[in-house]
Amino acid sequence: MKEFEYYNPVRIFFGRDQVSKISQMIPSGSKVILLYGGGSIKKNGVYDRIMEALTGYDVTEFGGIEPNPLYETSMKAVEIINSKGIGFILAAGGGSVIDAAKFIAAASLYEGSDPWDILSGSVPVKAAIPLGAILTLPATGTEMNKNSVISRKSTTEKLAFASPFVYPVFSILLPDAAGTLPPAQVANGVVDAFVHVIEQYLTYPANSPVQDRFAEAILLTLIEEGPKVYRNPSDYEAMSNLMWSATMALNGLLSCGVPGDWSVHTIGHELTALHGIDHARTLAIVLPGVWKKLRAEKSAKLLQYGERVWKITEGSEDQRIDATIESTVSFFESLGIKTRLSDYGVGSETIDLIAGRFEKRRWLSLGDRGLVTPELTRQILEVQK
Amino acid sequence: MKEFEYYNPVRIFFGRDQVSKISQMIPSGSKVILLYGGGSIKKNGVYDRIMEALTGYDVTEFGGIEPNPLYETSMKAVEIINSKGIGFILAAGGGSVIDAAKFIAAASLYEGSDPWDILSGSVPVKAAIPLGAILTLPATGTEMNKNSVISRKSTTEKLAFASPFVYPVFSILLPDAAGTLPPAQVANGVVDAFVHVIEQYLTYPANSPVQDRFAEAILLTLIEEGPKVYRNPSDYEAMSNLMWSATMALNGLLSCGVPGDWSVHTIGHELTALHGIDHARTLAIVLPGVWKKLRAEKSAKLLQYGERVWKITEGSEDQRIDATIESTVSFFESLGIKTRLSDYGVGSETIDLIAGRFEKRRWLSLGDRGLVTPELTRQILEVQK
Repeated sequence: MKEFEYYNPVRIFFGRDQVSKISQMIPSGSKVILLYGGGSIKKNGVYDRIMEALTGYDVTEFGGIEPNPLYETSMKAVEIINSKGIGFILAAGGGSVIDAAKFIAAASLYEGSDPWDILSGSVPVKAAIPLGAILTLPATGTEMNKNSVISRKSTTEKLAFASPFVYPVFSILLPDAAGTLPPAQVANGVVDAFVHVIEQYLTYPANSPVQDRFAEAILLTLIEEGPKVYRNPSDYEAMSNLMWSATMALNGLLSCGVPGDWSVHTIGHELTALHGIDHARTLAIVLPGVWKKLRAEKSAKLLQYGERVWKITEGSEDQRIDATIESTVSFFESLGIKTRLSDYGVGSETIDLIAGRFEKRRWLSLGDRGLVTPELTRQILEVQK
Repeated sequence: MKEFEYYNPVRIFFGRDQVSKISQMIPSGSKVILLYGGGSIKKNGVYDRIMEALTGYDVTEFGGIEPNPLYETSMKAVEIINSKGIGFILAAGGGSVIDAAKFIAAASLYEGSDPWDILSGSVPVKAAIPLGAILTLPATGTEMNKNSVISRKSTTEKLAFASPFVYPVFSILLPDAAGTLPPAQVANGVVDAFVHVIEQYLTYPANSPVQDRFAEAILLTLIEEGPKVYRNPSDYEAMSNLMWSATMALNGLLSCGVPGDWSVHTIGHELTALHGIDHARTLAIVLPGVWKKLRAEKSAKLLQYGERVWKITEGSEDQRIDATIESTVSFFESLGIKTRLSDYGVGSETIDLIAGRFEKRRWLSLGDRGLVTPELTRQILEVQK
């Protein structure tokens, strides 16, 4: 285990009937902006519960935040916040709305000329408007971390930032609201959480048995509960377990003192930016490719994962690794998530484009040991054609 | 899973060379009181590292905090803090020093006439002086929670309190410093952490697979790493894993949305208060007694624990439960921790006294379902004679 720092001050309220906690957490009399997406919160009753809890606050609504939230949309919210002197951001929905809220919170107090700088990486965040989240879709873990991913339409880019200033002050997790999700979105959530765990776990041995077993705990739970929720999103107990798994998958605990990879995400973001493929589906495409091309380098952890999560103990090491990759792919496919580029109509020109972008950005050594070069990125995508 | 709230703002610095973080965390120019115990920090070099990091602060030292820290000693520190106008408490050592620091922090700003009221339970804490911790002994988990247990010499009582005001602002975890501990103290730490997990896990099924598997993750790690550290406390890697296990065992995560028991601790505290037996050893005495007397009520979780942690899958349910209890007792004994009252020279009169105290305090229904009456407490101790 390496030296590490861990800090996560997000207050979680989990379960039914937690929406009323809003009034306990937002200073009374605050000017609040309520961010949401395509309006599903108006159909599942969450909007009404929020507005009831916000009685007595000065509330401005801002709907229409898209999946893969846009810089362009976010900047409209920033304008409203600054013109009205709004002091608290409340984000209701899935990871996209909460990610947008984090960027909006930081961009509203950004002192430079272009808040895109926060994402393009040159400028650290120094302040942000306080924000709270109401989660209705288990997936990204953004409700309990300091990360955000934003896309820019004008340049088809998708970039991330992280800052302790954008930890939500509180997050209210509503498994009941998630019960109205379409199965395809549930499947996305399961796979997203799954790959978040994998990026922090499936690297190389680091003598970190607690972190390893916590990771395996979440993977086993996703494999067990994911299909239940996919078949029946309104299974409250199973949805609760999925939701808590997804939150724990990316709140900083799993990465304490261990290496992280994140090459799957970095490559996947390009597929979303260029083709609008759902984030989770891009991960399901790229992950098997990374394992196929780095099977020797990741063999120790692939074998451990295969044994402890999929109970694969028979055969040679090579056979066990094959079976482990196959089990993972079958799990994704069982949730209706395809794992080949051709399933999404993506061909060679995209592969060239992505490898070229990484070259141009000097992203020459991604992954847990810097092994993922632009050339290896090309091969990873080629093998998943 | 039940509804729950989770909040834990403690900032953790883990590993060698983290002591210098003090100056980053305590406002410069603060008046600081440095609390410690019997002086082991002067032998293992931690004291010197702390004093170096505290260059430029106005530091008052207060040593001599005992294992099972006393109310009487704590009140002397409160007097110094108030007379000198001290604004930050730094606790260096094991759980006792940090528990004392929490009580001292709350008692220093207590507005009533007698701070003992915080412990006897009638009065909630409304403020506390900020505190930081430097942990040199993995065991209690107090470095990352809001709990504290204090003893009162004059009345031979040992009582607990909890308040969000006494979360450490930061805790620095030093596996290297723990490397100089005597094996008996290491053994205490392993058993203490083990029983902390058990109190939150071995109750009854609550459909909480993530919490269950996290608990099992810590138990498995303690069983694996505990003996290594017992044999060789200076095994830095194993000590790191023990230390992180002990912290994760009681930072609030395992108890999210699940029932808790805590009858083992409540009964154990009496054995310490009356006979000065090490806290962990009292737990090792009481735990098997609770399982023997509540084996039917706890059978589902005893079987799960036996199977997942001890790999016990053969035989009837009764045989598997027997084997599970035996495995646990053998594990404690392998660390030199005896599990019978007679091993500590404790007899029937103490059993009567404890049952009588619980009766008098109206502690009539302890445990996860209120099943532990004063009469059952008597039986639990009788079976461990």
